[in-house]
Amino acid sequence: MKKVAVIMGSDSDIPVVQKAIDVLDQFSIPYEVHIYSAHRTPEEAKEFSRNARKNNFGVIIAAAGMAAHLAGAVAANTTLPVIGIPIKSNGLGGIDALLSTVQMPSGIPVAAVAIDGGANAALLSVQILSLSDDGIAKKLSEFRKENYKKVLKKNESIENKFNNRS
Amino acid sequence: MKKVAVIMGSDSDIPVVQKAIDVLDQFSIPYEVHIYSAHRTPEEAKEFSRNARKNNFGVIIAAAGMAAHLAGAVAANTTLPVIGIPIKSNGLGGIDALLSTVQMPSGIPVAAVAIDGGANAALLSVQILSLSDDGIAKKLSEFRKENYKKVLKKNESIENKFNNRS
Amino acid sequence: MKKVAVIMGSDSDIPVVQKAIDVLDQFSIPYEVHIYSAHRTPEEAKEFSRNARKNNFGVIIAAAGMAAHLAGAVAANTTLPVIGIPIKSNGLGGIDALLSTVQMPSGIPVAAVAIDGGANAALLSVQILSLSDDGIAKKLSEFRKENYKKVLKKNESIENKFNNRS
Amino acid sequence: MKKVAVIMGSDSDIPVVQKAIDVLDQFSIPYEVHIYSAHRTPEEAKEFSRNARKNNFGVIIAAAGMAAHLAGAVAANTTLPVIGIPIKSNGLGGIDALLSTVQMPSGIPVAAVAIDGGANAALLSVQILSLSDDGIAKKLSEFRKENYKKVLKKNESIENKFNNRS
Amino acid sequence: MKKVAVIMGSDSDIPVVQKAIDVLDQFSIPYEVHIYSAHRTPEEAKEFSRNARKNNFGVIIAAAGMAAHLAGAVAANTTLPVIGIPIKSNGLGGIDALLSTVQMPSGIPVAAVAIDGGANAALLSVQILSLSDDGIAKKLSEFRKENYKKVLKKNESIENKFNNRS
Amino acid sequence: MKKVAVIMGSDSDIPVVQKAIDVLDQFSIPYEVHIYSAHRTPEEAKEFSRNARKNNFGVIIAAAGMAAHLAGAVAANTTLPVIGIPIKSNGLGGIDALLSTVQMPSGIPVAAVAIDGGANAALLSVQILSLSDDGIAKKLSEFRKENYKKVLKKNESIENKFNNRS
Amino acid sequence: MKKVAVIMGSDSDIPVVQKAIDVLDQFSIPYEVHIYSAHRTPEEAKEFSRNARKNNFGVIIAAAGMAAHLAGAVAANTTLPVIGIPIKSNGLGGIDALLSTVQMPSGIPVAAVAIDGGANAALLSVQILSLSDDGIAKKLSEFRKENYKKVLKKNESIENKFNNRS
Amino acid sequence: MKKVAVIMGSDSDIPVVQKAIDVLDQFSIPYEVHIYSAHRTPEEAKEFSRNARKNNFGVIIAAAGMAAHLAGAVAANTTLPVIGIPIKSNGLGGIDALLSTVQMPSGIPVAAVAIDGGANAALLSVQILSLSDDGIAKKLSEFRKENYKKVLKKNESIENKFNNRS
Repeated sequence: MKKVAVIMGSDSDIPVVQKAIDVLDQFSIPYEVHIYSAHRTPEEAKEFSRNARKNNFGVIIAAAGMAAHLAGAVAANTTLPVIGIPIKSNGLGGIDALLSTVQMPSGIPVAAVAIDGGANAALLSVQILSLSDDGIAKKLSEFRKENYKKVLKKNESIENKFNNRS
Repeated sequence: MKKVAVIMGSDSDIPVVQKAIDVLDQFSIPYEVHIYSAHRTPEEAKEFSRNARKNNFGVIIAAAGMAAHLAGAVAANTTLPVIGIPIKSNGLGGIDALLSTVQMPSGIPVAAVAIDGGANAALLSVQILSLSDDGIAKKLSEFRKENYKKVLKKNESIENKFNNRS
Repeated sequence: MKKVAVIMGSDSDIPVVQKAIDVLDQFSIPYEVHIYSAHRTPEEAKEFSRNARKNNFGVIIAAAGMAAHLAGAVAANTTLPVIGIPIKSNGLGGIDALLSTVQMPSGIPVAAVAIDGGANAALLSVQILSLSDDGIAKKLSEFRKENYKKVLKKNESIENKFNNRS
Repeated sequence: MKKVAVIMGSDSDIPVVQKAIDVLDQFSIPYEVHIYSAHRTPEEAKEFSRNARKNNFGVIIAAAGMAAHLAGAVAANTTLPVIGIPIKSNGLGGIDALLSTVQMPSGIPVAAVAIDGGANAALLSVQILSLSDDGIAKKLSEFRKENYKKVLKKNESIENKFNNRS
Repeated sequence: MKKVAVIMGSDSDIPVVQKAIDVLDQFSIPYEVHIYSAHRTPEEAKEFSRNARKNNFGVIIAAAGMAAHLAGAVAANTTLPVIGIPIKSNGLGGIDALLSTVQMPSGIPVAAVAIDGGANAALLSVQILSLSDDGIAKKLSEFRKENYKKVLKKNESIENKFNNRS
Repeated sequence: MKKVAVIMGSDSDIPVVQKAIDVLDQFSIPYEVHIYSAHRTPEEAKEFSRNARKNNFGVIIAAAGMAAHLAGAVAANTTLPVIGIPIKSNGLGGIDALLSTVQMPSGIPVAAVAIDGGANAALLSVQILSLSDDGIAKKLSEFRKENYKKVLKKNESIENKFNNRS
Repeated sequence: MKKVAVIMGSDSDIPVVQKAIDVLDQFSIPYEVHIYSAHRTPEEAKEFSRNARKNNFGVIIAAAGMAAHLAGAVAANTTLPVIGIPIKSNGLGGIDALLSTVQMPSGIPVAAVAIDGGANAALLSVQILSLSDDGIAKKLSEFRKENYKKVLKKNESIENKFNNRS
Repeated sequence: MKKVAVIMGSDSDIPVVQKAIDVLDQFSIPYEVHIYSAHRTPEEAKEFSRNARKNNFGVIIAAAGMAAHLAGAVAANTTLPVIGIPIKSNGLGGIDALLSTVQMPSGIPVAAVAIDGGANAALLSVQILSLSDDGIAKKLSEFRKENYKKVLKKNESIENKFNNRS
């Protein structure tokens, strides 16, 4: 099975990245985690990106804050789908990282998820891998159903609490 | 080969959607184009999304403006990867559509591209499909090389114009 | 008397929703509270919305954060007035939820109140119900008068504190 | 039948207000149109608002730009539902009018629609009036169905144009 | 001597208003403090504003948050200079109050100061009153000089700490 | 009578400044117009500001765009009231000039008006001068009444156009 | 004398870049102009940046729009001072490019100038080169004086036009 | 060797300024630290700026918050390169200081770094000084290499923690 690469620009991004890893573990997707900085270790980021396809990766997730260049720098060096997680790291609430990640020029796409959206970045990578793996597709359906049931359950609890009188 | 669905919320989105279609044509990716409105034809949007995987779609691209719910509404009904294109349609410059598209809650991911980023949405879908099709992967490499050469050529022209004296 | 539905996308929205419920209790308006997620339980949200008018609801209040689609998704399935409460849930201060709630395309209106404006959402629903119920209209006048008196009282206390010397 | 009041702060708001009037005409809702400025004719705005309920109005729509106080000033003087239309009137794209309209303090609600959302403001008022008028409710359903069919038709036209080869 | 009126929309604004009062006390300017809400006690706000000039006020300072209408509502009822203090009261950092205060339509000016700028609102009122009172003008010069000296002193302390080696 | 100084940072600001001048002419307020740049002719700006009070000025209006420092630079050198007009001059719609003008630190106030608010800046200066000149105060009342009548007239015209059928 | 490199991400940036070139010509600074894209020709950008110091460059100016990574990508590969020009290229007015350029993480600085600030980017580079070249320093003083005189002249023309009556 | 001046508008800026000083110490760059306020001690700021070049300074770093005029005021009085650090000081997260610092008009450049970017401001000044000092240039290369190694080390630690199973 193809692997997912989870790259972060700094170890301060770990709390968000951990949410991605938890999802990948839940789906038993093989993955690797790396710190590659677009600005401090650009060669390592480039080398990893260039070789990712032949090293059996299917998706690269890149998390970065501020002027978040990592996802774009990775995307410039691979034709694998690259998912960018904008990280909130200052008083601007992550809008700097969001715009730096999503507003890519034509030709080099990055798939942006929500600010600090670690779990969804991983889910998106799982959905991509599911195209050629019916087992993952099935797990995704089950995952959706479980989430569905959790919301139903929470709804039930809320209804019990509030709707007795009406 | 898996198909790409290109959905838009309104026919005013066609100029941006056309850029996606042009890219899909360039890569000979089979596709379908539809207008499904998250709010005016929600059942059609849902039915299409629910059946997309078994109807041999691999990716769904959804373009919408303002409180752009289309990509999220589609994503809620499929486990295929869904790419959202935020459309600029008023004085806010598309920031409303961008936030409505990208800030999805945990559990239902949408892959957002730049505001009016039709070409990149298509390229991202091609990159996703390339995971199980070496022919597409090869075409992507060639596409990158052509873009690379175009930039080199533009650079050459600029250098000729400006750098004679130095 | 027609009922008010108070729907939230997640149980993390309860603190804001509670402010709406308190107002409805104060006006003795019958209501129901539900968790329906636009993305995780979309069918339940749709079914509820479609049947709301015939189930004797007069107004639906929908609270959601981030790319807040709930109010719009409900509005797409009913011609009852739908009130959206944008919930602040991250570093953007709720501007993402506000734009996702208020910037609805022509044809499917949502009545947006302030970010985290639970009390006003309920008051607005009470004002709507007052159109066909003079008792409620009278209570609203009294409520306004009480608020008026509270401000007068606070003013008096402030004036006593600050204006002795002048 | 209860009437709708359509108030604007300035005659420069007419293009947006006209969209509201067209919808009210389409639904044969009786209405009145006035220019009342929150700052230049505040007494007239107040008097109108105070008497609106007893003058058989059911909803007041208030359109204003910049530091858009009109809807709030009206809402302070009536317990009828008040719908605010933020008008775009400068380089800020209407965000000033939106925040001035929607961020009302607790106790005095305003129902905000999208920037320049004249049609939706009127539709929202029609939906409110439908609560006590089954004829309007039926017309709203038909209106929705017509919009639904229009989107289907546009979809058909798009499908014919783009999907022949697939 | 003419008085300064310091009005706030809510007693939650007191911490910022106190900074204004402290400055007025420092300059021995007579003042009155009131809570008048643009929406909950609009008549009181209006009556106060209408009579302010003849009641020997020279300036009115109005502090309010969210869709901060108070300064504008006061300005609509007086030709005295009105100073608006936008109050930060939610996740938007006060930008809603700033735009609601400063973006006044032509004809009814409000003088806006910084978000939470209580001290500067008072200083501005003192500067206005200084036009016809040389004593105040002299005090303002002295106040500036004291501030000047305070900065010089802080500079000295910083220089002593950091510049020994160079 | 005290004069008003109207200063602008660049001659591109004239269209907005002209609106201020028109108001001053209308009220027969003596004034002077100057171009003083906070960055290109800072000494002239400073000298003018320092001498403004003794040169019989009562108010200084300063118009500037982008990182609009002019009003603040003037305010630093006078204890006269300084009114800042933020000028829209690029794609940001004037929000850069607004924040640069209004967010003054404690101790040196600037009275900000709306973006491109030339007329209101002048009106505010007239209101300030009215404190010691009953003639101006009377003219301001009349100006308000004329504006009031203009709105009434526009309202009448609108009512005639739209309200015949109801 | 050390040269200035003027790099742009796309030939659509030429209008802004031309303003930089005009300034460099005015100061007779040797320069080179290149198109290097952070994403489409990243190796060329890197190679140029790595060799810039030894190739006798003193400053690199990098202009780019949207998720403007170019200045940061250059800065990651040189210890020369890098000046970033954020280019306005869509409805967001350049705020995306500004944040992507200026919000660099600690360790790799970029010197950002105003959106579309081509002339200032060049002036800043000239100021940097002036540190080791008294001739340039002298020219800068003269340039300032000329600008100073231009503003004086414009002021004179404005004063003649407006201040005759006072 | 030329010195770096580190100026701040207020002693509340020290935490950010300290990060700049630490970097200058690390590179053994001579520096001076001062508090000069653009508004409270403008003459001192001007005098310092005017004499900076002849007093052997090579770069001036200016840190300020809110309507951050300090860097611009300094830049208006010197042709040395001026680096502005926007300081976050309120609910707007520093966007006011950023725009006030970076959006300088043509003719007077300021080199802006990230909000609260003290370290990068110092690094940028070191990079500027390195143009005429090979020793500093060498230290910068070593500093980069050390940062590079630190990231590699963190990467190693992350890889050890997460990548054992794959």
